[in-house]
Amino acid sequence: MFKIILLAGFLSFFVNAHAQEWQLMPLPKTIEPLKEQFRIPTDGIRFEITGDYHQRINDNTQWFLKRLSKKTSIPFLPGKGKVINIHINKPGEVKLKENESYQLTINNQHISIHAETDLGAIHALETLIQLTTFDTEGYYFPGVKIMDEPRFPWRGLMLDVCRHFLPVEVVKRNIDAMSAVKLNVLHLHLTEDQGFRIESKKFPQLHEEGSNGEYFTQEEMKEIIHHANIRGIRVMPEFDMPGHTTSWMVGMPELASAPGTYEIEKYFGVFDPTMDPSQEFTYQLLGEFLHEMAQLFPDEYIHIGGDENNGKQWNNNEKIQTFMQQKGLTSNHELQAYFNKKLQKILTKNNKKMMGWDEIYDPDLPKNIVIHSWRGYNYMYQAAKRGYQSILSNGYYIDLSHNAINHYRVDPLPDTTTLTDAEQKKILGGEAPIWTELVNAENVDSRIWPRTAAIAERLWSPNPPSSEVEMYKRLQKISLHLEICGVRHLANRELMMRRIAGKDNIANLMKLANAAEPLEGYRRHSSQRYTTYHPLSRFVDIAVPDAPDIITFRILLKEYLKNQSEDIYDTLQTTFLNWKNNHSLIKNDIKNNPGLQEIENLSINLSKLASITLKLLERYHNGNTINRAEVTNISDQLTELEKPVAEMEIPLAEDAKLILSLLNNNTLE
Amino acid sequence: MFKIILLAGFLSFFVNAHAQEWQLMPLPKTIEPLKEQFRIPTDGIRFEITGDYHQRINDNTQWFLKRLSKKTSIPFLPGKGKVINIHINKPGEVKLKENESYQLTINNQHISIHAETDLGAIHALETLIQLTTFDTEGYYFPGVKIMDEPRFPWRGLMLDVCRHFLPVEVVKRNIDAMSAVKLNVLHLHLTEDQGFRIESKKFPQLHEEGSNGEYFTQEEMKEIIHHANIRGIRVMPEFDMPGHTTSWMVGMPELASAPGTYEIEKYFGVFDPTMDPSQEFTYQLLGEFLHEMAQLFPDEYIHIGGDENNGKQWNNNEKIQTFMQQKGLTSNHELQAYFNKKLQKILTKNNKKMMGWDEIYDPDLPKNIVIHSWRGYNYMYQAAKRGYQSILSNGYYIDLSHNAINHYRVDPLPDTTTLTDAEQKKILGGEAPIWTELVNAENVDSRIWPRTAAIAERLWSPNPPSSEVEMYKRLQKISLHLEICGVRHLANRELMMRRIAGKDNIANLMKLANAAEPLEGYRRHSSQRYTTYHPLSRFVDIAVPDAPDIITFRILLKEYLKNQSEDIYDTLQTTFLNWKNNHSLIKNDIKNNPGLQEIENLSINLSKLASITLKLLERYHNGNTINRAEVTNISDQLTELEKPVAEMEIPLAEDAKLILSLLNNNTLE
Repeated sequence: MFKIILLAGFLSFFVNAHAQEWQLMPLPKTIEPLKEQFRIPTDGIRFEITGDYHQRINDNTQWFLKRLSKKTSIPFLPGKGKVINIHINKPGEVKLKENESYQLTINNQHISIHAETDLGAIHALETLIQLTTFDTEGYYFPGVKIMDEPRFPWRGLMLDVCRHFLPVEVVKRNIDAMSAVKLNVLHLHLTEDQGFRIESKKFPQLHEEGSNGEYFTQEEMKEIIHHANIRGIRVMPEFDMPGHTTSWMVGMPELASAPGTYEIEKYFGVFDPTMDPSQEFTYQLLGEFLHEMAQLFPDEYIHIGGDENNGKQWNNNEKIQTFMQQKGLTSNHELQAYFNKKLQKILTKNNKKMMGWDEIYDPDLPKNIVIHSWRGYNYMYQAAKRGYQSILSNGYYIDLSHNAINHYRVDPLPDTTTLTDAEQKKILGGEAPIWTELVNAENVDSRIWPRTAAIAERLWSPNPPSSEVEMYKRLQKISLHLEICGVRHLANRELMMRRIAGKDNIANLMKLANAAEPLEGYRRHSSQRYTTYHPLSRFVDIAVPDAPDIITFRILLKEYLKNQSEDIYDTLQTTFLNWKNNHSLIKNDIKNNPGLQEIENLSINLSKLASITLKLLERYHNGNTINRAEVTNISDQLTELEKPVAEMEIPLAEDAKLILSLLNNNTLE
Repeated sequence: MFKIILLAGFLSFFVNAHAQEWQLMPLPKTIEPLKEQFRIPTDGIRFEITGDYHQRINDNTQWFLKRLSKKTSIPFLPGKGKVINIHINKPGEVKLKENESYQLTINNQHISIHAETDLGAIHALETLIQLTTFDTEGYYFPGVKIMDEPRFPWRGLMLDVCRHFLPVEVVKRNIDAMSAVKLNVLHLHLTEDQGFRIESKKFPQLHEEGSNGEYFTQEEMKEIIHHANIRGIRVMPEFDMPGHTTSWMVGMPELASAPGTYEIEKYFGVFDPTMDPSQEFTYQLLGEFLHEMAQLFPDEYIHIGGDENNGKQWNNNEKIQTFMQQKGLTSNHELQAYFNKKLQKILTKNNKKMMGWDEIYDPDLPKNIVIHSWRGYNYMYQAAKRGYQSILSNGYYIDLSHNAINHYRVDPLPDTTTLTDAEQKKILGGEAPIWTELVNAENVDSRIWPRTAAIAERLWSPNPPSSEVEMYKRLQKISLHLEICGVRHLANRELMMRRIAGKDNIANLMKLANAAEPLEGYRRHSSQRYTTYHPLSRFVDIAVPDAPDIITFRILLKEYLKNQSEDIYDTLQTTFLNWKNNHSLIKNDIKNNPGLQEIENLSINLSKLASITLKLLERYHNGNTINRAEVTNISDQLTELEKPVAEMEIPLAEDAKLILSLLNNNTLE
């Protein structure tokens, strides 16, 4: 029922004809088309930069030319070709609330970029390259006047590099993709029950014992921070404390609130190991460790986590219970607040500001901390009302495999807000977290992209940025552009499919994969108990939210329902027939291959769903009616066919239900 | 004409039925099938290692399990599951002529590996993972007894990281692929006219001025060497001298034999800049530089290049001419020999042996050097007869886009050799060099793989290793396996095609790309003057030698011509019809897209060639004859249709000519 409403919502938004022309994501604040074109000459393009700027702009013009050269196959020799002018007023600093605005003008003869800082100029370059288009005569940039600046200053992606480690090159290519959609904070979740992922020279037993050898050396981390800085992106580290800390205890069991030896956690969930907040040793260690990390990470914020402490080790530890009585602490929340205040002082001493998940809120903490809202909107609003800054992640959990539209609808500051202007200023923005229970270096790109571009638009563009159908059209385009920026969300899916299939010809298997979606929320975990050793190499790990062929189909269906075009009807029929016939093309592959046998019913269901939906659409097209018995019968079939198979489902049942409801309405009229 | 003979040769070899069962490359020395199976249980597999060994074997069992887990989707939890036993007699050293032999036995209950050193055990693991197969019940290893050892001790891949730089991760994934096919030498060509690619702490101006910022730091190089060592692979550096040295002169013009300032070369070919062999400064610098490099690279060999010195700067330098007279040197070859002898002494002082391209041969050089034969077999044979060791690269130039079969036929020591046993022992093996004028980080994998697996087999397996058709069948399988080992020769082609096409649906464009091949030899360079700034992102950069669909087709055609099977005839007809119809499916894409317009005739030609070949095959199948006039007419058409388009050609004309010749023979009979 919930899904029917979503789909109806998806189809009900009007198309913003103005915005539809642009293949931009996020959309700029204002955009004015000019009836001109800047043609890209085959003898190249070069940049002239004036004003006062940080040299990172040079890296970004190189990065721009490299991608444009690949896209157009034009070699850009240094010092040759038409000029793009960039003027920058002052060097940008990669820090919260730096000026990121820019103006971009493209006409027949010139392209000019004006920006207050080079960070704005980087955004301008990313807008410009997204505008690249072609006609039969060659490549060009369409004439345009753009004035742009972000709606929120904090636009982040959180990578959990702990549950599955993500090596340097994976992080770096995702930084490039972030820059392409104007995100500006990379939040690295560096310590967890399943792994301690950063080298400590002070306490090497932490990463050596706590990581199975998979961690960032400090040199590598510097490389990541440098690369992010070049792209205008902050890197904020998170050390999750006092819970989610099993991996710390492997090398340093004396940190724990219960005696014994500890092993790196291989399961997922909430576990008991928690730091002992009653002993001075804990604060001594954290003092030295955070001092070391404060030197390594230049950002002014350090995230101390603070979530999901189950309190069991505290409850069972007599020494801690006595300590609480002595200090007059009457709950675990108060004990954690005590711990956080000690942390906050350590951070202040190291010139860092504290950030934490929304559990950390306590009125004794100073107003310069940032509350990271993950359990709900209300934590963010409460924080703002109490004078605390906050950002939103509730609604942006991209690991949960929800469709982009669900995230796109989540606005940190909807029009209906009752916050005062001053309170609204405390809402800094948001972050999309990718928790990696079911994500590894191979599939992480397809779990982040292109969906996160929709969140990036929500955080950058004016509200409402665009209609939802039009957003999806642009999302399809940005997906291809993101591949040019280096992420492997498309290529790795095909690679994984060849591996399962054991053959090169995977077109029909991909057809099924492109019409199926992984189960949403935490439902995949109920089918089996996953561990960090699961290779995540099954069909479900290739399927993606926003199943690409379903999205394309829904855009068409929406258009058809508006205008009943015969052409679109024909295309829809062909789509259904292809889906319907697909099972016969892959059934032998499936039967004979132990890695594919689990998807047999999924393939059959796609075939049946296509068949049913095709018939319903034919009836609708022909103006036929339907009777109650048929409705019941078909509804029952659909309910059966939308059941999960191998941790996936086929969203087509929703579309069938929609058409069925339209037919039913026709009948009732 | 040459190509017709090749194709006829390709089709004439008999199929070795015994070898055909195995999906192994390279084939082992002896292999005995057992009628048993080791089933891979869903609760996993683990290793027990006994004997005396280097700990690199543990990294390799991990690497084995990681790939097997991805292939089978089975999580392998530590310490659980069925046991694979490995016994190793002594730790291996990654050096020339180390023992690489192994025995592998697989039966219902056990897998056991015996090896003299862990290097042999690594080869055994790579054989084992290639044997992985499945039936409807699950995954298993087929029962087998294998005794294996290499035919030649030097089996190399040479990467030119200068003309286009190849970053660490590209080198590392190619090391993994090398290990998969039992290659054991990575020869890194580190300095060239177009770039100085290794950090020198002693003379930082060399890499700083000579590389455009793209070079390996010493830390990165250590990482590469370490990774190669783990996989049992030597890393031999090459510093090409005294020619091919423009990039040295950028930071250090005083090294050159002509005054002036120098710029990094952006064109390709043979250039004038050459080191001055008449000044002490040159040897002082090289003494210090090679000392630094001798510390960095642990291998006992250093390659000093020595090729293609055009001598112009020497001829025009009076001081050098006087020097030659004083020393009694009567030719540039003698002057270069003088230079080489000085280098050889420097290397000896640093405990290194010298290797160089075949130009370096001089009877005054000691017998421990290695001659690298690139201009022809005869240089290798002459070296052997004179008591010098040598390896073969002539015939293995994989950058020239020849089909795998051409390389496979090249044997360093064919049965017909007239060398004595002692002379034969001087032939150490061979290396496949990939020069990177038209190769970059994006397409390098598809320029190396899978073809280099055929060369690896030639150098590892007994002679003759297998029939050529059967080799191609195994090459198709190893190609998929290599993707599992991490190289991106398949995935990057699709990524590049999406970028040109500007859309996701590229199946029909890939159909054309998979039937076309880049021009062979140096012919691409005659169509335009390439530079290091060319992005190598055109259709021709996606096309590959051994066009995959042509290979599949030829295997079928060969089978059809043997047995005239109706089934295969039907499949061939379908293949032709798909090719024939393909142009109509992509012609609009081509017309409208400036990046695709150049392939219009290629697409039309495939369509026409398929049409002609289909008709010829129909005639052949129906036992029809053909008259002289028709033969002439069709031959003329084929000559037209096989002409290059956009630096590619469609090899199908050769097959058409073959069938035409068979029809013609029928007619003449």
